[in-house]
Amino acid sequence: MKIQVINPNTSIEMTHSIDASAKNIASFSTEIVTVCPKKGVESIEGHYDEAISAIGVLELVQQGRLDGIDGHIIACFGDPALHAAREIADAPVIGIAEAAFHVASLIATKFTIVTTLSRTKIIAEHLLHEYGFSHKCSKIRCIDLPVLALEQDENNTYQRLKESCLLAKAQDDIGAIVLGCGGMSKMVNQLSQDIGIPVVDGVGAAVKLVEALVGLGVKTSKWGDYAYPTTKS
Amino acid sequence: MKIQVINPNTSIEMTHSIDASAKNIASFSTEIVTVCPKKGVESIEGHYDEAISAIGVLELVQQGRLDGIDGHIIACFGDPALHAAREIADAPVIGIAEAAFHVASLIATKFTIVTTLSRTKIIAEHLLHEYGFSHKCSKIRCIDLPVLALEQDENNTYQRLKESCLLAKAQDDIGAIVLGCGGMSKMVNQLSQDIGIPVVDGVGAAVKLVEALVGLGVKTSKWGDYAYPTTKS
Amino acid sequence: MKIQVINPNTSIEMTHSIDASAKNIASFSTEIVTVCPKKGVESIEGHYDEAISAIGVLELVQQGRLDGIDGHIIACFGDPALHAAREIADAPVIGIAEAAFHVASLIATKFTIVTTLSRTKIIAEHLLHEYGFSHKCSKIRCIDLPVLALEQDENNTYQRLKESCLLAKAQDDIGAIVLGCGGMSKMVNQLSQDIGIPVVDGVGAAVKLVEALVGLGVKTSKWGDYAYPTTKS
Amino acid sequence: MKIQVINPNTSIEMTHSIDASAKNIASFSTEIVTVCPKKGVESIEGHYDEAISAIGVLELVQQGRLDGIDGHIIACFGDPALHAAREIADAPVIGIAEAAFHVASLIATKFTIVTTLSRTKIIAEHLLHEYGFSHKCSKIRCIDLPVLALEQDENNTYQRLKESCLLAKAQDDIGAIVLGCGGMSKMVNQLSQDIGIPVVDGVGAAVKLVEALVGLGVKTSKWGDYAYPTTKS
Amino acid sequence: MKIQVINPNTSIEMTHSIDASAKNIASFSTEIVTVCPKKGVESIEGHYDEAISAIGVLELVQQGRLDGIDGHIIACFGDPALHAAREIADAPVIGIAEAAFHVASLIATKFTIVTTLSRTKIIAEHLLHEYGFSHKCSKIRCIDLPVLALEQDENNTYQRLKESCLLAKAQDDIGAIVLGCGGMSKMVNQLSQDIGIPVVDGVGAAVKLVEALVGLGVKTSKWGDYAYPTTKS
Amino acid sequence: MKIQVINPNTSIEMTHSIDASAKNIASFSTEIVTVCPKKGVESIEGHYDEAISAIGVLELVQQGRLDGIDGHIIACFGDPALHAAREIADAPVIGIAEAAFHVASLIATKFTIVTTLSRTKIIAEHLLHEYGFSHKCSKIRCIDLPVLALEQDENNTYQRLKESCLLAKAQDDIGAIVLGCGGMSKMVNQLSQDIGIPVVDGVGAAVKLVEALVGLGVKTSKWGDYAYPTTKS
Repeated sequence: MKIQVINPNTSIEMTHSIDASAKNIASFSTEIVTVCPKKGVESIEGHYDEAISAIGVLELVQQGRLDGIDGHIIACFGDPALHAAREIADAPVIGIAEAAFHVASLIATKFTIVTTLSRTKIIAEHLLHEYGFSHKCSKIRCIDLPVLALEQDENNTYQRLKESCLLAKAQDDIGAIVLGCGGMSKMVNQLSQDIGIPVVDGVGAAVKLVEALVGLGVKTSKWGDYAYPTTKS
Repeated sequence: MKIQVINPNTSIEMTHSIDASAKNIASFSTEIVTVCPKKGVESIEGHYDEAISAIGVLELVQQGRLDGIDGHIIACFGDPALHAAREIADAPVIGIAEAAFHVASLIATKFTIVTTLSRTKIIAEHLLHEYGFSHKCSKIRCIDLPVLALEQDENNTYQRLKESCLLAKAQDDIGAIVLGCGGMSKMVNQLSQDIGIPVVDGVGAAVKLVEALVGLGVKTSKWGDYAYPTTKS
Repeated sequence: MKIQVINPNTSIEMTHSIDASAKNIASFSTEIVTVCPKKGVESIEGHYDEAISAIGVLELVQQGRLDGIDGHIIACFGDPALHAAREIADAPVIGIAEAAFHVASLIATKFTIVTTLSRTKIIAEHLLHEYGFSHKCSKIRCIDLPVLALEQDENNTYQRLKESCLLAKAQDDIGAIVLGCGGMSKMVNQLSQDIGIPVVDGVGAAVKLVEALVGLGVKTSKWGDYAYPTTKS
Repeated sequence: MKIQVINPNTSIEMTHSIDASAKNIASFSTEIVTVCPKKGVESIEGHYDEAISAIGVLELVQQGRLDGIDGHIIACFGDPALHAAREIADAPVIGIAEAAFHVASLIATKFTIVTTLSRTKIIAEHLLHEYGFSHKCSKIRCIDLPVLALEQDENNTYQRLKESCLLAKAQDDIGAIVLGCGGMSKMVNQLSQDIGIPVVDGVGAAVKLVEALVGLGVKTSKWGDYAYPTTKS
Repeated sequence: MKIQVINPNTSIEMTHSIDASAKNIASFSTEIVTVCPKKGVESIEGHYDEAISAIGVLELVQQGRLDGIDGHIIACFGDPALHAAREIADAPVIGIAEAAFHVASLIATKFTIVTTLSRTKIIAEHLLHEYGFSHKCSKIRCIDLPVLALEQDENNTYQRLKESCLLAKAQDDIGAIVLGCGGMSKMVNQLSQDIGIPVVDGVGAAVKLVEALVGLGVKTSKWGDYAYPTTKS
Repeated sequence: MKIQVINPNTSIEMTHSIDASAKNIASFSTEIVTVCPKKGVESIEGHYDEAISAIGVLELVQQGRLDGIDGHIIACFGDPALHAAREIADAPVIGIAEAAFHVASLIATKFTIVTTLSRTKIIAEHLLHEYGFSHKCSKIRCIDLPVLALEQDENNTYQRLKESCLLAKAQDDIGAIVLGCGGMSKMVNQLSQDIGIPVVDGVGAAVKLVEALVGLGVKTSKWGDYAYPTTKS
């Protein structure tokens, strides 16, 4: 089984970090192919960055399809171009936000999201609303660090994350925490240990959900709105 | 006042048609500048087409901003790249789907949408859900014609539209009808007369709403998630 | 174009203040006719005041219709008798609460309402729920001043409003603020400047939306529940 | 215990019919005092009729309060002026629509409403939405008879009602039916027998719910938005 | 009229306390028969306790039916086995959580729930969501005492309850308070007096609602999902 | 990895059928242990059957935990005792209804459920509402066969299922179908082929989701409402 993990931004550093997380969690027989677009935005921190990243994501999905990929992951917490990707894909496509919401919902009745900048909260809210998880999300907390700063001072990043997670555990009536950025992926194990409640990373969640769909033999539906795009002159 | 009307697809014919509708409804003192991207998709009939069209829309918004535009309209019923456009715009930005929903809500308690292909129904449903109009939309009806076919046999198009609108009037417990495609814009007056209840075209609705916002002196908020995109290295 | 602005309470002072706000924002070619009922309540601060004010509003709408009015505005934040007014009107009818919600939704993803007494919060909540804007309203804040006190010590009123707006800007994850009383109308420009984010006044919003509907040529639907009332013996 | 049943329209015939229904269901120790306003509308079949009826309802509530009434019922299926009435009442106030929804919810998971004219469907929808019963209402069916025609040809009325109820039983996946007009009250027992599933009449339901509240010793809250109206100069 | 009050836990002390509350509020002609299962859990403080208690509740409903009971009450705030009980019952069945929500909704626009342990908050949330009262509940507050501790130090219990209720009154924009445990039943009168706003106890509410349904002559629907269970080999 | 599949009813035949489906889809390294309670109901076709089955499910979960099970599946489409099972489990617990909803949501924007008796529709509706998938479910269709009849005339069962699925594909604007009973599990592959759109069986879906959670290293949260039940005297 070959899973394509698409980092929608152009940061090589974050692509490597996501790749490591994905490989770390993948089954023995799963090959992880992590890619990022050559052109696009260096980090995704708003509606504009998301919209811009779509074209790169879609080109990579198309390339992955030609390469015989068995499943695609969109590794940015806004799930950019998810529906569009499913339209051109044959294999399953999963976004890391939706993956994390699905997994958290299976182990807890409510969860808190801990993400980067407060301007991205609305993106998570829109996704929760569209997917149907709004009533399961108790709160969206921010650590107020830009995406690319996450890796600059990892100690600081970790301390802020830990602080937010502990507040969530103490105050939010939750059973689990969702990490709201692919760049936080590498810290999930340490956080789970330090916080003492399940912490869900979307990258890992997406890898296992794609494996599950492939194992189940179901693919993206080609009937209805996910049918291949209409051809034009 | 200068309003930029962006047709997100590359069809020159539809751009002209939208331009005529917009000019027809604009106030005497409003200048309409209708544009379409040079590259992109010829018609927008699904998630993929929408995602692809975003980059063209955003480039045109940026260009419009440099040209001193007072308001932008995204003239495709899926409102592609709406939030992203607001992030880079200073002036108001309105999509024709949201414009039509807002206007219909001000003159009727419920409305039916009549659109093109059934695969696009989910896009309208997602917008209704996100914007908060789901409970005001009684039904989404399709005439099962591709966007570009609308202009090929206008008589046929009109007959199908009329038939759907009459069914909606008779069966859907509504007070108004929303036309679900920029390409239907030119038929709105004839339809209103023939159906005998208000028929709302998003292009016209958007022109008047942008004029209203400009007249009111309010612009897209630059506080929060619509602040200009974060700068990157 | 002649727009009738109905202040549903009997306060002459507030009627003048609303009149000035409406005239200030109206287009050059729009004539504003501001009226208030001769009998009724001096201020509207609850369900009872609203219900009582309905009859005056409806008589004025009927009078306006005879006078050839092109659009009606109900200038109280509870939108009293809105549906009923549409039933007897031919022209568009807009309430200032709905007007403000619509406008705020076009320039920001979320907004906070700043209103007068806390007992009126539920009225705003009911309207948000009915209209479909609940998920766009982050918070309803009160300045705890009765409606008629707004004009008694305008400096105090302004300071309290400003304080609430600044708190909203800092804490509520919003992009815009909605003023929750027609009596705050005159302070909207100063507030917008001092707060630094869009502040939306329903009176101005309603004037521009009515102008938009009239310009668009759409009137209140006379099909379905907004048809003229059934005649009785 | 003295319960005031307010028929919000001026029809003496319907007032008598409602009075009979209320007395028929009231406990031995309950005195029923049925009243209707001297001025107002002869039947309530839309938003306008409702708004107009409010003033009569409120005057009667106030009179009832002076007369030492223990509970008030608003016997029109749109629950006109319900919140306003609670503001000026001390005793419990219940509308027959809400009463029927509450009772139906306690004996079935879903119900269908059978009402008069289709233009009144939206009023029931708004109430279901506001009260929180939307997901429990499977369908709203109309017999397309004006309110006052209900009593003109009772045989015809009954046949139409029965037909609608049987369709509801067969097709709507429901466990109970709610009658959507005070004027249908007298037919509830015959319908229950003929249809073979519980049929709920709001007048009877309201009488028993008011008795329940009085027996429980709870009154309309005077804290918050139901506190007595603010006094004005 | 004979009403069976089922305490779903095995605590004799709490059964007596609930019995006293029910008898205190019941009409003169109503006979209260309070029972609890012989086997089961001593207190219900979570999903597991609820599920386990179902079998005892259902056996008692079946027994009550044989004994000619006119109505059943499930006297635990999670309404355990409510739908199942209705399936095997002929008479009305009411849970004390739903009873309290219905009553509170008839006297106030919003309410706060004060309950025992914070782990039970999700149960109340699920019920509010299923029944349709979510938007009427402002907050769920906990006194952080286990169910069985309520009766051990009644003075302490009362002080904590009072403190929570006073905070709710001051901060939650509500008109009424709902007590979230059958074991708090006996304190409802004192609390109502001390807090000065209506405090609703589910046991009393359920008694009066069952009396209302019986008086109205409606029983649990035997059409649809509440029909008697299908028979098996 | 050892997964316990719990058939909540006592039918040995169905237990074997579910066992076969689970083993068929499980990974090479996964051991499937399918069990059913010794006492309980032979088939689950309503609220009562569900409530009764809870105790057997919970005993088997407890037993499974002692046996070192890595994950539990509740293989009845009503997900009976799901929250309760999570409270006493340490490992993940998944119901087949939720599993099917999650999987269908990852490959299509909307789905239809095809289930057995119409009286069970409300159970699916309640789950969709609680889990947040209501807006993704287009319709619930029934084949009107009792659960145990599914296996009596498999040819008839298959024809009815196929007919319902084809109607769903043609009329419901969906991309996938969810089978609403564990007893339909064995027909999923044939149906997928014959219908030509993805058909999701909850048993298979649950097996792969449990494998995913175990592979991800997340377990049922033991913080909050899923903490182990409180101990009592």
